[in-house]
Amino acid sequence: MIYLDYNATTPVPPEVFEAMEPFWRELYGNPSSIHQGGERVARQLRRSRREVASLLGAHEESEIVFTSGGTESNNAALRSAVSQGTGKRRIVTTAVEHSSILKTARALREEGIEMITLPVSREGELDQERLRESLTEDTALVSVMMANNETGVIFPIEEIGQVIREKGILFHVDAVQGVGKVSFSLARLPIDFLSLSAHKFGGPKGSGALYIRKGTPFRPLLFGGSQERGRRAGTENVPAIAGLGAACQRLQRVFLEETEKVRELRDDFEDSVLVRIPGVAVNGNRLNRLPNTSNLAFEGVDAEALLILLDQEGICASSGSACLSGAPEPSHVLKAMGLSDREAKSSVRFSFGPENTSEEVGKVLELLERFVNRLREIELEEQHPHSVIP
Amino acid sequence: MIYLDYNATTPVPPEVFEAMEPFWRELYGNPSSIHQGGERVARQLRRSRREVASLLGAHEESEIVFTSGGTESNNAALRSAVSQGTGKRRIVTTAVEHSSILKTARALREEGIEMITLPVSREGELDQERLRESLTEDTALVSVMMANNETGVIFPIEEIGQVIREKGILFHVDAVQGVGKVSFSLARLPIDFLSLSAHKFGGPKGSGALYIRKGTPFRPLLFGGSQERGRRAGTENVPAIAGLGAACQRLQRVFLEETEKVRELRDDFEDSVLVRIPGVAVNGNRLNRLPNTSNLAFEGVDAEALLILLDQEGICASSGSACLSGAPEPSHVLKAMGLSDREAKSSVRFSFGPENTSEEVGKVLELLERFVNRLREIELEEQHPHSVIP
Repeated sequence: MIYLDYNATTPVPPEVFEAMEPFWRELYGNPSSIHQGGERVARQLRRSRREVASLLGAHEESEIVFTSGGTESNNAALRSAVSQGTGKRRIVTTAVEHSSILKTARALREEGIEMITLPVSREGELDQERLRESLTEDTALVSVMMANNETGVIFPIEEIGQVIREKGILFHVDAVQGVGKVSFSLARLPIDFLSLSAHKFGGPKGSGALYIRKGTPFRPLLFGGSQERGRRAGTENVPAIAGLGAACQRLQRVFLEETEKVRELRDDFEDSVLVRIPGVAVNGNRLNRLPNTSNLAFEGVDAEALLILLDQEGICASSGSACLSGAPEPSHVLKAMGLSDREAKSSVRFSFGPENTSEEVGKVLELLERFVNRLREIELEEQHPHSVIP
Repeated sequence: MIYLDYNATTPVPPEVFEAMEPFWRELYGNPSSIHQGGERVARQLRRSRREVASLLGAHEESEIVFTSGGTESNNAALRSAVSQGTGKRRIVTTAVEHSSILKTARALREEGIEMITLPVSREGELDQERLRESLTEDTALVSVMMANNETGVIFPIEEIGQVIREKGILFHVDAVQGVGKVSFSLARLPIDFLSLSAHKFGGPKGSGALYIRKGTPFRPLLFGGSQERGRRAGTENVPAIAGLGAACQRLQRVFLEETEKVRELRDDFEDSVLVRIPGVAVNGNRLNRLPNTSNLAFEGVDAEALLILLDQEGICASSGSACLSGAPEPSHVLKAMGLSDREAKSSVRFSFGPENTSEEVGKVLELLERFVNRLREIELEEQHPHSVIP
């Protein structure tokens, strides 16, 4: 299998697995228990919290709240921001956010919250003037992603944050695709909430975090026990949290080396595709983009058919967010960038990771060229059934 | 270590761990991905869903929604029941529920929902007449636990369900302490929602399920991707779900044998304590109770001091819910049963599991007798500092 779908999920490196392993049969206690069986486990939670805080550049460990993943973190931040009794009823977000932001905002709209969805340019970039105009006195929260899961386009979080902070509005950043691919530090960013998901950067599924800047008002999404200082009830998923911490620690060590390697692979791949296959366009701004993502529109090619051919050869890529797969609609991200339905439905996302090799890239290029040509021939025949193709 | 805190959490049996192991490094794909890397993983979700449905006696696999645990399931059921736009604004529950029910209901009360908390008897049993009286036309949901986490007292779910169903009210059962300790089948019970948590019966932390009877209206707690048929967004915690399924399958095989073994250990322990140590009372109805739980009030003994002495000898027990540990207040469950603060603060919960042995019980009995006597002597000295103890 050649796995080019790292934006959907990632394998867990051996050292991350080893960090989790003791917590199922040996150190299985409930970290809230006050006996030794719990205390030794609670120690791991403190360690993981330190590791996450350190990676993010958070000021205090207590700003990290462990959750079940990016979706929960996103839901919690949005719902909390409009449940503060301030009377502020507007959420501002963008048209290219992940469904866990857009659908949560839409659910809140049913409860009387106003939702403003900012447009993006053909290259997937945010119009900062439009953002500025949307920030009324009634605005509770701006929620913007750090990097887009489909195109990899990076939003200028620091600039956006400055504008928002001037107005005294809360700022949430969905960094699910940013962590592990973009270098940033919360110490230098005017962010109130930040969401991350372990399984997008070598951590396990079922684990994520919500950063809540100290002093930021917060109302929990999950009520019950007093875990996470009363901000997220429920017995902590200790093994997964141990894995999240280990993945963060690992990143601090390997980030530069791995992102450089991944960027080279992606660039080699993309440049070669553009040279070898005519009628291919890159979706999203090529410069201002994650190092691992290549979202390509193959003119006259049905992306689903192309993905099936690739899959038959053991190559895993995607036509967009895994969270939305199975949906017959073209990508809302590409549509928001002004692509036609046809263009959107001809687009494939390749997302690379540190376990990929240049041999894999070579093999994918070869097959991709062959399959794109074949699909275009079929398309041509269907359009002109009686013509003879030379 | 002698672990007598199985109601707080349980170790994961080897076969459950083995069921999880492939899903971190080999079958790490996103189950929503349509390529092979995802499809092989999605297959495990189907298998786990079948295993959970089978254990519960659910009519259809699609009635099972995977969640991050019991707390999430409880939050989701309660919030959904009052978000149906029916205008029904009352939730009826009991004074001895887990904090994830009571605190969620209290949070909903802040949003205008009426919360009725039914009292229990000295033996921890529900007054069914009071329940009947509370069921107004305005009642959206009754939420009752299958078995109490602190005392082990079992509520008559079938009887309660009949009363509720007659009135057309939704019925939620928090079965977090019931699954694996009580034999029941949803096929024969008039239940609309049921919550369970994997780590209470040999599954991993971070995994649970919410049963939603087919046709029951439901509004998600987490919005985003269309996982779980749109009822719970977020990439599935695949390894943990594999573990949950394996734990359910295991239970179907070992349930009778293990519960019988555990019951014998618990009865041996409890009977011996009552014979060997004077001034001990069992909290909760002794007959109508989980087979593994023994909640004992040691007259004149500070439970926290006793737990510390036991812990120093490697014996793990608890003074109540781990989710509430660290809280200085006496148990809300024991208080609701009419125990005084002093009685509640002299109570210790011992909860047994299949990995306990009669040798362990023997050792605990010996130490318990010694420690209770020592603490009573200290107490006596403090009360009568100048008297001579014979």
